[in-house]
Amino acid sequence: MIVLFTDFGTSDPYVGQMKARIHEYAPSQQVVDLLHETPDYNAHAGAHLIAAFAPNFPPGTVFICVVDPGVGTGRESVVVTAGGRWFVGPDNGLLSIVAARNADSKVWRIKWQPEVLSTSFHGRDIFAVIAAEIAKGDFPANKLEAKAKLHVEFDAGDLARVIYIDHFGNAWTGQRASSIPAGSRVVAKGGEFSNAETFGSVGKGEGFWFANSVGLLELAINRGNVADKLGLKVGDTIQVYKPN
Amino acid sequence: MIVLFTDFGTSDPYVGQMKARIHEYAPSQQVVDLLHETPDYNAHAGAHLIAAFAPNFPPGTVFICVVDPGVGTGRESVVVTAGGRWFVGPDNGLLSIVAARNADSKVWRIKWQPEVLSTSFHGRDIFAVIAAEIAKGDFPANKLEAKAKLHVEFDAGDLARVIYIDHFGNAWTGQRASSIPAGSRVVAKGGEFSNAETFGSVGKGEGFWFANSVGLLELAINRGNVADKLGLKVGDTIQVYKPN
Amino acid sequence: MIVLFTDFGTSDPYVGQMKARIHEYAPSQQVVDLLHETPDYNAHAGAHLIAAFAPNFPPGTVFICVVDPGVGTGRESVVVTAGGRWFVGPDNGLLSIVAARNADSKVWRIKWQPEVLSTSFHGRDIFAVIAAEIAKGDFPANKLEAKAKLHVEFDAGDLARVIYIDHFGNAWTGQRASSIPAGSRVVAKGGEFSNAETFGSVGKGEGFWFANSVGLLELAINRGNVADKLGLKVGDTIQVYKPN
Repeated sequence: MIVLFTDFGTSDPYVGQMKARIHEYAPSQQVVDLLHETPDYNAHAGAHLIAAFAPNFPPGTVFICVVDPGVGTGRESVVVTAGGRWFVGPDNGLLSIVAARNADSKVWRIKWQPEVLSTSFHGRDIFAVIAAEIAKGDFPANKLEAKAKLHVEFDAGDLARVIYIDHFGNAWTGQRASSIPAGSRVVAKGGEFSNAETFGSVGKGEGFWFANSVGLLELAINRGNVADKLGLKVGDTIQVYKPN
Repeated sequence: MIVLFTDFGTSDPYVGQMKARIHEYAPSQQVVDLLHETPDYNAHAGAHLIAAFAPNFPPGTVFICVVDPGVGTGRESVVVTAGGRWFVGPDNGLLSIVAARNADSKVWRIKWQPEVLSTSFHGRDIFAVIAAEIAKGDFPANKLEAKAKLHVEFDAGDLARVIYIDHFGNAWTGQRASSIPAGSRVVAKGGEFSNAETFGSVGKGEGFWFANSVGLLELAINRGNVADKLGLKVGDTIQVYKPN
Repeated sequence: MIVLFTDFGTSDPYVGQMKARIHEYAPSQQVVDLLHETPDYNAHAGAHLIAAFAPNFPPGTVFICVVDPGVGTGRESVVVTAGGRWFVGPDNGLLSIVAARNADSKVWRIKWQPEVLSTSFHGRDIFAVIAAEIAKGDFPANKLEAKAKLHVEFDAGDLARVIYIDHFGNAWTGQRASSIPAGSRVVAKGGEFSNAETFGSVGKGEGFWFANSVGLLELAINRGNVADKLGLKVGDTIQVYKPN
């Protein structure tokens, strides 16, 4: 299975061109759109998101990850294996957190270039081809070169900031919920949140934080839009107050 | 074929996670996104929509239907068979109209839970798995329990209200068009509409009602946006005046 | 491979119904969404877009192209082969540029109609079926009739206008970049652009034009939104000043 994780948007003709290229090289692979609305140009938020998503996918999954404002410049393209899964994308930090959180990580630089290479769309021209070959079990060793480590590495710890806002207005943070006791209070943009198990556990219009379906601390209002209400944006900080 | 019908939105990472889970359990099934923008939290509008869509799909199709503000609380999960098709979703009314409109309907409660179950994403953790097993012909009898009827049932008659507005601004209603004579006038938010066969049958900027591609009465303006013009919203009523 | 190119939008239930129909007739074909946000009703912009996209897809690809405000009226439906690829859609100009730019083009009128035909959704009821049959190698000769030429033909030369604006705000034009020397200046809505290879080649916030990934002249601002900044819209003209 090949999984796409980009900032290409869902309305533009970029994802489809990338998929067509994948199908050319790996006609029988399933291709899944995970997210095409990672915050634009924001490799840092993207790095926390892909690290949280990855463990929910089966081993052997190949992710194409593209948040790539430096496309066409000197930044390198890489393949990372981590936790039994594969990641193809730019070496701009985007893959550094999933790599750091898995002890078995390895990194390769993609040295291969196709004969015709656009300056702005390596997702189609390079990443799609490499991912297709890995997914069909045909590891492209001759197109790669082992690399000791990634060039750009973000801090792999939790990030106490909003990293994604969904269409319901729920605000995902880069804080993993497993380390936060249920009695903790969370404050963001003046709003205060206590824990609840899920939406239906609180009254309509009531805010709460919960451990979301990928294990991150998420802020929400039952049948409401917490991002609109508080003016929350990607990058805003949260404060977590653990119980005494 | 598995068909997805949800309020997850097209931009968020929910649909992709659900699809990946389906592919794990039924790797060779085709999965089709029918609609991910059913009005948020609105099981009533959703129930009329899925009942209208279903007959256009081949027998054996498995629909995953998720408009589920009560996820993680006491509401039950169900499998419904109706008209030779399958429906997996919450027992909150969403599946009640398609069930009521088919004489052969049967209902099962999903008693199975996976070892790891999120509180907010049963679409991925439960419905995807059950639907995958049904679709590949491996009916999960041991995960289900026959149920006499659905717990929540909406009126299965027509609904003279707007239930969906598309990106052209066309307003779908819950009124089946087959029972409305062509000479009828329709009034909504002060606008008045007579019947036309299709868009090109009326002048540019002219409004009309027509029997849409799933048999519902729909309001439109040729090359215009009727919802914007009249301020129509999901839930607004329409009045149908049949000819004398 | 079947590729979809429409103005159906990504949020509405039109694409899914069309795909389901394709899967009924050609269950093992890959179906790729190229673009569902071609400018609404704008067959002219669509014609330049599909002509630019097509050469990047492998021979044998079948495109379903729908920008079809005249659906249900007298306009004919056609199949076009051009450059070894197939195109199914309305005869309203949409397919005329890709046809004119390939010396081997042939045209057929679709004379077939299904027993149940909606007035507003020929993409599902006609085009999906014809495309599925072509894609699986079962050319539907009995449903077609050779036609000397298309009824509606647009000028197949370059179009010095904006034809698409992506979600980053980048403005695609109908001007093929291969004929524009790198030293050229481009003016649009009072903004002036010189050439750069790609985004990272200019400073943050700086505008430039470049040959985009399908060979069209595109206007952009590095990490900015050129369409918002200049108020650019589809249809706006550009002026190209070649160096002396």
